[in-house]
Amino acid sequence: MTGEDTAAPPVLLVHDDREYLVEPGTEKGTDLGVLEIPAEIEPGETIETHLGTEFRVRRLRGPDLFHHFERTGAPMVPRDIGLVLGETGISRGDRVLDTGTGTGVLAASMARAGASVVSYEQNPEFADVARENMVLGGVADAVDVRTGDLTDELDDLDPSSFDVVTLDTADAPTIVARTPELLVEGGFVAIYSPFVESTREVARTAREAGLANVRTRETIQREMDFDDRGSRPSTAPVGHTGYLTIARNE
Amino acid sequence: MTGEDTAAPPVLLVHDDREYLVEPGTEKGTDLGVLEIPAEIEPGETIETHLGTEFRVRRLRGPDLFHHFERTGAPMVPRDIGLVLGETGISRGDRVLDTGTGTGVLAASMARAGASVVSYEQNPEFADVARENMVLGGVADAVDVRTGDLTDELDDLDPSSFDVVTLDTADAPTIVARTPELLVEGGFVAIYSPFVESTREVARTAREAGLANVRTRETIQREMDFDDRGSRPSTAPVGHTGYLTIARNE
Amino acid sequence: MTGEDTAAPPVLLVHDDREYLVEPGTEKGTDLGVLEIPAEIEPGETIETHLGTEFRVRRLRGPDLFHHFERTGAPMVPRDIGLVLGETGISRGDRVLDTGTGTGVLAASMARAGASVVSYEQNPEFADVARENMVLGGVADAVDVRTGDLTDELDDLDPSSFDVVTLDTADAPTIVARTPELLVEGGFVAIYSPFVESTREVARTAREAGLANVRTRETIQREMDFDDRGSRPSTAPVGHTGYLTIARNE
Amino acid sequence: MTGEDTAAPPVLLVHDDREYLVEPGTEKGTDLGVLEIPAEIEPGETIETHLGTEFRVRRLRGPDLFHHFERTGAPMVPRDIGLVLGETGISRGDRVLDTGTGTGVLAASMARAGASVVSYEQNPEFADVARENMVLGGVADAVDVRTGDLTDELDDLDPSSFDVVTLDTADAPTIVARTPELLVEGGFVAIYSPFVESTREVARTAREAGLANVRTRETIQREMDFDDRGSRPSTAPVGHTGYLTIARNE
Repeated sequence: MTGEDTAAPPVLLVHDDREYLVEPGTEKGTDLGVLEIPAEIEPGETIETHLGTEFRVRRLRGPDLFHHFERTGAPMVPRDIGLVLGETGISRGDRVLDTGTGTGVLAASMARAGASVVSYEQNPEFADVARENMVLGGVADAVDVRTGDLTDELDDLDPSSFDVVTLDTADAPTIVARTPELLVEGGFVAIYSPFVESTREVARTAREAGLANVRTRETIQREMDFDDRGSRPSTAPVGHTGYLTIARNE
Repeated sequence: MTGEDTAAPPVLLVHDDREYLVEPGTEKGTDLGVLEIPAEIEPGETIETHLGTEFRVRRLRGPDLFHHFERTGAPMVPRDIGLVLGETGISRGDRVLDTGTGTGVLAASMARAGASVVSYEQNPEFADVARENMVLGGVADAVDVRTGDLTDELDDLDPSSFDVVTLDTADAPTIVARTPELLVEGGFVAIYSPFVESTREVARTAREAGLANVRTRETIQREMDFDDRGSRPSTAPVGHTGYLTIARNE
Repeated sequence: MTGEDTAAPPVLLVHDDREYLVEPGTEKGTDLGVLEIPAEIEPGETIETHLGTEFRVRRLRGPDLFHHFERTGAPMVPRDIGLVLGETGISRGDRVLDTGTGTGVLAASMARAGASVVSYEQNPEFADVARENMVLGGVADAVDVRTGDLTDELDDLDPSSFDVVTLDTADAPTIVARTPELLVEGGFVAIYSPFVESTREVARTAREAGLANVRTRETIQREMDFDDRGSRPSTAPVGHTGYLTIARNE
Repeated sequence: MTGEDTAAPPVLLVHDDREYLVEPGTEKGTDLGVLEIPAEIEPGETIETHLGTEFRVRRLRGPDLFHHFERTGAPMVPRDIGLVLGETGISRGDRVLDTGTGTGVLAASMARAGASVVSYEQNPEFADVARENMVLGGVADAVDVRTGDLTDELDDLDPSSFDVVTLDTADAPTIVARTPELLVEGGFVAIYSPFVESTREVARTAREAGLANVRTRETIQREMDFDDRGSRPSTAPVGHTGYLTIARNE
């Protein structure tokens, strides 16, 4: 795992409201005709279906993952992915331990920022979908999706072998308790949890494990409306997604 | 600019509450003695001052930039950096146009996630500090801090030569109006602005320029308190930092 | 105007999901038959339609006004009514100047807390509806709904003749500028305004007029969800209603 | 208990930053001299200390209670009092059962809006202070502060004898379970609780007791700053106070 892709990365093909995430060298059937995607395709080019409809080629960006990955549950929204990236400082060279993979948007986003990710998913079918998503996201070589329960594997992981641990599962406390061994000094653990009770348990475990700077934040976002009458927060705000608990190994 | 560092990157030296961000191959005077930092230093090692006090060597992480960069103003907090990263999907290979540099935490964070950044700062002294900060952040080769006013340089930039534009200056609307030329298709512009009036102007300009999915969000975060009595949001919440407006070139 | 009703007050008649706000001594046709409402009806009693269906008699409470008043626009929600009541301390004996009446829920609520209210409504049809609503709310003798534009009447009002002024109109600043004359010492003005720009103008005018403790607050409310999985803020929060600016005449 | 005062009500005496809440017919020593307060004093008048300093006479308003009542704990803030008033529709003629009294700002505010209040306070010294506060608030005849634990008295209260029940104690669930008997049909119970866990218990009990429209809301308020640079939410927002759970007896 190097964090570098060697094959041409997947691209988006766009025509009006149609948008497909495809791998170079493959074929894609659409209601506007079949697209033969060249192995050497470049963003900014256009290609035609066999019926002559043009699609523009666009480079994949992180927020596109949210829309194009096959879902096995509600994927983490770009805002929450950003909060994890910002609060843990994910960057190139990072080794990340992640569970549960789910749709894989977080794992892929961390890989796209340069990290090598080992991600555990208990459900074998979900893990298969996640692996396909990693290929679509151009990060198959940077994300190792493992089918299994991370809590069973903790003893087999090398000590101090991860820079960041990211958790989005119900048994997060069990893993949090072991993060002081798993993380390098200065490494972060980030736990995403929807309910107060589980979040409380996570924060308590982090403190008891001796992690530093344990803090839980809730994020409320509101869209602003600007119209001819004036400016105001939207009457239809964005709802609660989850609590984010961050702690550091010091 | 390659997004890859060749020299050994800066490291943190930690002893109790003391923490220094230093470059390998340099010397650092402290009240506990002088530290000679070897050129080949590695995280996890320890080094001693000439008085025999041990410092542990720690890898630099994004949130450390906020504390260790020399400040020329209030730097963007990790949360807001994360929101920019998440909403624009900054990743390796991205070419980013940024202004105003300020302390440079955003520019450095984007570089650490793999981007090549051109960042404009009008104040020559601030620009000098930002350049030193980029060295300290290990991203001197990935961030080109240019002294000057980006609004004067717009005609000299190549069309479609940026994946993302990030703006944190009072004249953001002037630049937003030009982003459809500067950005590749699918590229994002992210504007950070503290006041409603300037934010409104930014959003209006983005719409008039034909950018898609223009939306402005305000982020409210609250720390949760967990103690023996129960769980509740903190009575001392995190305050307003700014509005983040995101738009896409489609 | 005494703040005391002499006739029997209106009551609610309830049968399953049907709920009618009616005046004693009148007749009400329903799909379950006609209700003859005795002049001396008491909460806790039951009455029957001519077809024999029983309705229970219930005393009217403030939040019922929101559902039973005929609407001429979006009425102020119980939460915002409460904030006006709490921040101005409306109580018996208060003389309140109010505009624009609209549906009249705020005027009626203040009257129900013991205030005598003079309320201006520019639209004659809306004023007629508001007067009927005051009868339905049992406060016809405590709320004087006047058809007209308060800004034209300011010179005819006695100085220091009001304890509280409540404003919910676009020309609120014009009236705010005159509140130091209209209010007794220690009296409050409360201005409800949906947009930042108009709210800013209101706050500026209040300060320039010499009012004290001028402050504008925005209220964000979130419903909490409690289920078997745990506790969390609702994913469907209550949206923005308006800014409330409060100032005091000192 | 009639909800009407017969003696002249307490007034505020104001001189620059000095402000005293006093009863007519008493004497008040100040550092500017002694004030003999006439029994027939009226708001708008002025009186002099024996040293000749003038104080203006001002009518007491609800928000003044927060500053002038002697405190036996943190009193409920005007905002939360307003939310209770607005969501339950407290008005003249209401019979309210309240516990724990604490400083008594809520009980006094409900009395000032026309309610007759029976309020229980376990701590005898706190109850004494609350009784004095009721005199100062001009509502001694409308608020019956009883020393004791309401949970011990539940069997002695008449069924359907209250329009509203307001609770701010740790044993609120025990009382909530009995509110269907205590309240008239259509009556409200309002429970104020700082922690998620106790709030959850309160909401669960209310649902199990068969109360209708059980909902818990959290209120976040933010001050707006308007200055020459523009408009924005304050960087120093108002913190969490408590959750308010409202339910109705239907």
